[in-house]
Amino acid sequence: MSKKPTLYTCLSPALLHLYNVRDCVIVVIDVLRATSTIATALYNGAKSVIPVDSVEKCIRLGRSMECITAGERDGQIAEGLQYGNSAFEYPRSFIEGKILVLTTTNGTKLLHMALAKGATEIITGSFLNLSAVCEHLVEEKKNVILACAGWKDRVNLEDTLFAGAVIAAIGKHFTIDCDASQIAHCLYGNAKENLFEFMKEHDASHYHRLMNYGLERDIRHCLTADLANVVPYYKDERLLI
Amino acid sequence: MSKKPTLYTCLSPALLHLYNVRDCVIVVIDVLRATSTIATALYNGAKSVIPVDSVEKCIRLGRSMECITAGERDGQIAEGLQYGNSAFEYPRSFIEGKILVLTTTNGTKLLHMALAKGATEIITGSFLNLSAVCEHLVEEKKNVILACAGWKDRVNLEDTLFAGAVIAAIGKHFTIDCDASQIAHCLYGNAKENLFEFMKEHDASHYHRLMNYGLERDIRHCLTADLANVVPYYKDERLLI
Repeated sequence: MSKKPTLYTCLSPALLHLYNVRDCVIVVIDVLRATSTIATALYNGAKSVIPVDSVEKCIRLGRSMECITAGERDGQIAEGLQYGNSAFEYPRSFIEGKILVLTTTNGTKLLHMALAKGATEIITGSFLNLSAVCEHLVEEKKNVILACAGWKDRVNLEDTLFAGAVIAAIGKHFTIDCDASQIAHCLYGNAKENLFEFMKEHDASHYHRLMNYGLERDIRHCLTADLANVVPYYKDERLLI
Repeated sequence: MSKKPTLYTCLSPALLHLYNVRDCVIVVIDVLRATSTIATALYNGAKSVIPVDSVEKCIRLGRSMECITAGERDGQIAEGLQYGNSAFEYPRSFIEGKILVLTTTNGTKLLHMALAKGATEIITGSFLNLSAVCEHLVEEKKNVILACAGWKDRVNLEDTLFAGAVIAAIGKHFTIDCDASQIAHCLYGNAKENLFEFMKEHDASHYHRLMNYGLERDIRHCLTADLANVVPYYKDERLLI
């Protein structure tokens, strides 16, 4: 029998240095809402999504090429950008054939950190593309790092839950010697019957933040499996499927 | 009604910079086995425990003062030291009235990090002194950081479980806006009926490491509540009760 590839869960970008990111698949996870929006836009026919780490860079790219610029700060569309960070803003009728330049903080920062550390294969994960990501990881048979974006380097519930969902689905295909993965898996086991209620009952910090912006519908959407089942992968500074 | 103090859980020393350690009580947690051994030695009458971060420093202190030098590396008593890192080595008949100089890696490193960041009040926590720590935190009414030592900066199960046990016991006395605390609390809820079995079933990395050294009895002991119910606090480079 061939040896199973390894799987690790990195609960915060500030822990990424503990893992060997080379020669493995890094799954960048930013459930609320960067990687959910990325999956949705690409699923609905966007040509590509370019993740950038600042509003300024987003505006600059918007001037230099034909694209949609999007991003939020404190729950509002950032000044100088056109659209926000909700999956609902990117239906096929709007985004098909277009390039989306998206500025996010936690997810984009993590992606660039992984690149800087020598990652060669990066995909993005969210509940909206859970099954597609899982199938891809099983087929690839490479070592995996589930990398949670968290919130300003703090561990968060929803990204940890997504890591747990992946492990619940395909953990048996991997060698898992990683307490963080065990924690994520256990947490997901408690939450899976109703992720939204779990987030609410457990006072998830992001639950409160987004509820305060009136975004309950966004939260519920981003916690739903397989509504945008594609595998966004990073190549030449953009995400494609 | 007066405002409740805050409680945060820091799952790894590499995340400590995210928390304001000043003017709060830091609970250093290194269940397997530093903080369990510290509680035991002090409970059994040790004058003090001096935590040091290297075998060399431990040997040097041993030469300069009358004390017991102890510490392990890779499951063996480190060369040049007298005793190991098991609570069973420190019964009252042996340790009463003596000073224990203990070298550990993860727990000591975290303690020194907290000091360097300006922490003014540090205590140590383990299941062996769970109730004493909880009562102390409730009485003090100060902000709390439950700081897990982990393993080489990786999150581990047993320290996270201890944080969860504290939150299960006294969380209602605090304002908890911290997903890591929610995760720890939830994990403990799953594990509390049988912590040893939980560690075993969930392939805790420390479970395997210590079982390989033949230390099942140590693991079981360190997962038992209130066998050494004291509150070790750090003052002048040593832990006292």
